[in-house]
Amino acid sequence: MYSMYEDLQKRLSPKRFTHSLGVAKTAVLLARQYGVDEETAYIAGLAHDCAKELPLPIMQQVVNEAGLLIDPYMLASTALLHGAAGAVVAANRYGIDDEDILEAIRVHTTGKVGMTTLEKIIFLADYIEPSRTYPAVTAIREATKEGLNQGVLAGYNSTISLLIRQNSSIYFKTVLGRNDILQEIMDGR
Amino acid sequence: MYSMYEDLQKRLSPKRFTHSLGVAKTAVLLARQYGVDEETAYIAGLAHDCAKELPLPIMQQVVNEAGLLIDPYMLASTALLHGAAGAVVAANRYGIDDEDILEAIRVHTTGKVGMTTLEKIIFLADYIEPSRTYPAVTAIREATKEGLNQGVLAGYNSTISLLIRQNSSIYFKTVLGRNDILQEIMDGR
Repeated sequence: MYSMYEDLQKRLSPKRFTHSLGVAKTAVLLARQYGVDEETAYIAGLAHDCAKELPLPIMQQVVNEAGLLIDPYMLASTALLHGAAGAVVAANRYGIDDEDILEAIRVHTTGKVGMTTLEKIIFLADYIEPSRTYPAVTAIREATKEGLNQGVLAGYNSTISLLIRQNSSIYFKTVLGRNDILQEIMDGR
Repeated sequence: MYSMYEDLQKRLSPKRFTHSLGVAKTAVLLARQYGVDEETAYIAGLAHDCAKELPLPIMQQVVNEAGLLIDPYMLASTALLHGAAGAVVAANRYGIDDEDILEAIRVHTTGKVGMTTLEKIIFLADYIEPSRTYPAVTAIREATKEGLNQGVLAGYNSTISLLIRQNSSIYFKTVLGRNDILQEIMDGR
């Protein structure tokens, strides 16, 4: 763990490293609250953006060399691809072999249908860690007080709304993930 | 045509009939502007909601008897299913055999990837016909002044934003349709 911490501190921009540490610490708090192993949450949180600052062609090379099947929407976007690339980097460079952690890193930006509690925690911590200051963050923090799923839903909603305001494409799997968490809430799960 | 007009006037609620007539007239104006046959647009506009007031089980029966393959999300929702059911009713009850019209009726609520100009016209006229008064209508009318695709995009965006505010499921094919029209705009088509 020590080596990953130092390596990330050296390789990421100061802002990104502070963010990663914030996600790790927030993930630990959520893990404690929702019965997930705290060290697992910490590692996943710290590592989640390990590929975020790679150029797109390098991200593409990383996932291609790992033999991953990535759809063309994701393959064309650093915003979408850095999770999948990050899971490969976390495994190859930092020796993380816990599949639960790697999957939480992989889906932390897009979300997906049927997220585990750990995956929800990393997804949500990424939105609400203390250094975040974008306009919707207050609403997402408030929603998180109602529950993990409510926080995750608010995160999805803020991203979709932002993409609409920005005239950007909306990744359809993110919408499927949002509908799925909405259904979980409706079902009282 | 006369018989469909009278039949719809008799069978639809006054508000729905006024709306249908508004869509037909707005569709004619857009058809003139964008080089589509005006009578075709009128018929599609008048007929577009012909199944909207049927109960869900009847809509389901209509599409099942027609042998249509409908995904489970659409099959569970009158909001999504009334287009597909309407295309069947338009064909069977009103004898409409123009496949372009039937497809415009089928996709008028959900949208789809690769809409024809007629399909865009009915989709958009449904949002902006004169009797519409919901909050976002002004923005969609304004966007329509910039172009057909801009109006369609604004319509998609208003629906997705409304579904987020309502805590309702977002139909993923609507998101794919929105991304597609956004790409058309970006490409300058």
